[in-house]
Amino acid sequence: MTHETPAPDATRRNSEQVLIFDTTLRDGEQSPGASMTLEEKIEVADLLDAMGVDIIEAGFPIASEGDFEAVSAVAARVQRATVAGLARASAKDIDRCAEAVRKARSPRIHLFISTSPLHMKYKLQKEPEQVLEMITSSVTHARNLCDNIEWSAEDGTRSEIDFLCRAVERAIAAGATTINIPDTVGYAVPEEYQALFETVRARVPSSDKAIFSVHCHNDLGLAVANTLAGVRGGARQVECTINGLGERAGNAAMEEVVMALRVRGDRLAYHTGIDSTMLTRASKLVSAVSSFPVQYNKAIVGRNAFAHESGIHQDGMLKNAQTYEIMTPESVGVSKTSLVMGKHSGRHAFREKLKELGYDLGENALEDAFARFKDLADRKKIVYDEDLIALVDDEIGHAGDGIKLVALTVIAGTNGPQSAALTLDVYGEQKTHQATGNGPVDAVFNAICALVPHHAVLELYQVHAVTQGTDAQAEVSVRLAEDGKSVTAKGADPDTLVASARAYIAALNKLMVKRGKSRPAALTG
Amino acid sequence: MTHETPAPDATRRNSEQVLIFDTTLRDGEQSPGASMTLEEKIEVADLLDAMGVDIIEAGFPIASEGDFEAVSAVAARVQRATVAGLARASAKDIDRCAEAVRKARSPRIHLFISTSPLHMKYKLQKEPEQVLEMITSSVTHARNLCDNIEWSAEDGTRSEIDFLCRAVERAIAAGATTINIPDTVGYAVPEEYQALFETVRARVPSSDKAIFSVHCHNDLGLAVANTLAGVRGGARQVECTINGLGERAGNAAMEEVVMALRVRGDRLAYHTGIDSTMLTRASKLVSAVSSFPVQYNKAIVGRNAFAHESGIHQDGMLKNAQTYEIMTPESVGVSKTSLVMGKHSGRHAFREKLKELGYDLGENALEDAFARFKDLADRKKIVYDEDLIALVDDEIGHAGDGIKLVALTVIAGTNGPQSAALTLDVYGEQKTHQATGNGPVDAVFNAICALVPHHAVLELYQVHAVTQGTDAQAEVSVRLAEDGKSVTAKGADPDTLVASARAYIAALNKLMVKRGKSRPAALTG
Repeated sequence: MTHETPAPDATRRNSEQVLIFDTTLRDGEQSPGASMTLEEKIEVADLLDAMGVDIIEAGFPIASEGDFEAVSAVAARVQRATVAGLARASAKDIDRCAEAVRKARSPRIHLFISTSPLHMKYKLQKEPEQVLEMITSSVTHARNLCDNIEWSAEDGTRSEIDFLCRAVERAIAAGATTINIPDTVGYAVPEEYQALFETVRARVPSSDKAIFSVHCHNDLGLAVANTLAGVRGGARQVECTINGLGERAGNAAMEEVVMALRVRGDRLAYHTGIDSTMLTRASKLVSAVSSFPVQYNKAIVGRNAFAHESGIHQDGMLKNAQTYEIMTPESVGVSKTSLVMGKHSGRHAFREKLKELGYDLGENALEDAFARFKDLADRKKIVYDEDLIALVDDEIGHAGDGIKLVALTVIAGTNGPQSAALTLDVYGEQKTHQATGNGPVDAVFNAICALVPHHAVLELYQVHAVTQGTDAQAEVSVRLAEDGKSVTAKGADPDTLVASARAYIAALNKLMVKRGKSRPAALTG
Repeated sequence: MTHETPAPDATRRNSEQVLIFDTTLRDGEQSPGASMTLEEKIEVADLLDAMGVDIIEAGFPIASEGDFEAVSAVAARVQRATVAGLARASAKDIDRCAEAVRKARSPRIHLFISTSPLHMKYKLQKEPEQVLEMITSSVTHARNLCDNIEWSAEDGTRSEIDFLCRAVERAIAAGATTINIPDTVGYAVPEEYQALFETVRARVPSSDKAIFSVHCHNDLGLAVANTLAGVRGGARQVECTINGLGERAGNAAMEEVVMALRVRGDRLAYHTGIDSTMLTRASKLVSAVSSFPVQYNKAIVGRNAFAHESGIHQDGMLKNAQTYEIMTPESVGVSKTSLVMGKHSGRHAFREKLKELGYDLGENALEDAFARFKDLADRKKIVYDEDLIALVDDEIGHAGDGIKLVALTVIAGTNGPQSAALTLDVYGEQKTHQATGNGPVDAVFNAICALVPHHAVLELYQVHAVTQGTDAQAEVSVRLAEDGKSVTAKGADPDTLVASARAYIAALNKLMVKRGKSRPAALTG
């Protein structure tokens, strides 16, 4: 048994390709609290396209105006990947989806309908025969609008096998070219999921006309294993998300699937088109825009994934890294934090550094970011790459906001009450308020509420340091919920309280975009 | 295919038991930054024992004085579980381990040595025959001190099968009653790991004299699937950790293994003795003492594991919860946050409530906690269970500390510099200092450094809100590193800055305990 990873080229020669269908922007964004703005979705789509994703599912166009816009914008922009939109088995859904993906170089409509007895009875409230008819009519309708149709059997792993085979046959007959059998509720175990694909492919005569696809959820911790089992069962498309983002316990994590196929090419003779050295960057970007932290012990992309503390492991690592490492940190894009910029760095160096980090800012945004960088460099001994990323993400996220932070002074400590004096620019008008609170953050938030009245509830408040050391910038995440919808936003500053104010204000700005109003009702009074 | 979970009793009747070996306190605590104090380890061990863990691995006694003390203390305390300590194949290791587990009701010595060509050559620098001799001599030596011996083939999944079988045979011949074949580097894929157990058990004639054990790491996201595959291959002991804590990408998560066996009893005819309703509480406790946050989309215990946002899922859930839920939140101990205590609650109600939450405080600690509760109830509209847990954990963790917070006043905001005036009680002496900083947290930490000079580096700073709402208490985690050792501590307070000061001071106190000095050199000057 060898432990070395064959060179990717060697692997490719002897293996079949598996297509990577990324649904971070659809199933991932569906996670409570993970909603992203249009700009954030475009940034993620650009990175997915650059790293070699084959199909990007950009949203569910009928679900909201925002989803429609996001799918349209991603479709118009993406250079290499196919762009898919999701649709239920209704003409209205399909027409809206076709319209959204129309500008893509390679558009796809992704249809789904439930095929399990439980879902058909309770959720759809349809008889099985009605569901079969809906499959034929919806795939036919979609195929008239788009050549590339994927059809999914929702709750496929809890469907009756005879019915599932009939459903798949119908979908292929009506023109579907990709057939997805998802483990919607994360219920399958690997050998069962593999057998499901083998059975369906053996029993449906036309199955060679379609590419089969796996879509796994991680409710029992088996999403990646089930994904690999499905591939072994004949699937050649894998639906997954960066960081395993997704409903409930999430989807199969792209980074884990890609690296399992790469590291174990000896056992799993399949390859993907993903540039694995971009996985860490993709993880950081998706974590930042969704405000979902990655746990330290997350496989591949967690901060401890390549860390060794115990004496025995450290000793082994020093003698031969392969004793405890089955892949190199470099293979997934982890590099030592580099010390880069200081207070004497100029505009040109700053722009070049940002390019290296993957940012290409317009002139105005660059100027604003540079001013904040100089301010930061004055206050912080060492400015790391991560500090710049936090600063620029903060800058990009808040361009064009209606509410802006002007000034803040806070007095806090054990001898309360804590108080905050805050000045905001609210749609062009400067307003000031002084508030007290239960702690300085509460005082700051009370002052914001006084200046911008609203009814959202603070669901989440988190702070972490961007880099090490007591002078590290703080990055704050705030999640606000209103009428069943939630938004998450972040703010960065060396001052935790200023970062908190920025994050709360950013979340309010996002909430207003979500309401679809440029100036909310609560502000007009 | 049915989706309903059979009642545990029904499952048990038709299934074999799998022993749960928890190594949160050994392999989990080995994660960089996850070190726990003696008190925290005892708290975790008590909970593991109460929830039905069969074997608790409490540490690696030879590794440090602290590990020895922790194993001894857990051994003396645990009521039901077997208590194991880890040892290399040397008499010194084994003697120290035997001494540490001596007081356990049921002690076990867990021996390990590498059996892979790579590890034997580079790490051990021994010939295979020498390794075989070390197995015989170490197991024999251990068996003379303890009846219950587990032997592990480190890097088992990268070992040559012939040699591995010879090694296992030797260990059993010398008296080992549990044989563990770990996937030390998280390299295996499920069918390969299953086949490994089948082959070893078939080829080693004495294999029926031992219980086989799986120990999986999650480097490729396959730890749980490999664990289940090993069980299918004949293993009847599972080594795992709460939250999947452990080196690099961590170990198999106990909560995922337990619930996979429970939910899929139809396919996996095995059961464990774990009370699954205690899984969520165990996850929260381990997250708190290790200061490792659990990611939102973590299976079973993540905050989104039972959350549904998309309209389609919500609609389905309202019609029938089983459409998107394969287990109930209650089955893993998730309950709605209950509103419990207010400013008019008395000492008796407070004590009863703490008992309900699992705390049994001494008279002095109860009095201190009650005073802080009344203060909190004055400042916070609603006091949730989680608020009380944070407050009491904070109180317990800091009893007997040499450095205590007396008073803090902070001035901060956009018009810097930020400043902090701090008074500490340092080993009985009150000292005050005023410091400025890059942000209020930096100012507070600078003031602490001025009053208690030290050279530790701040590796991690994190804040989260204990409950929802702007007046939520903040819980701050701080990780300090000094001379390659790191400690993590937390502090809770409605004022983020006070919580930050408490956490930093708690970490300093921990660091001093770790140094093994009651009064550190830096303080004597």
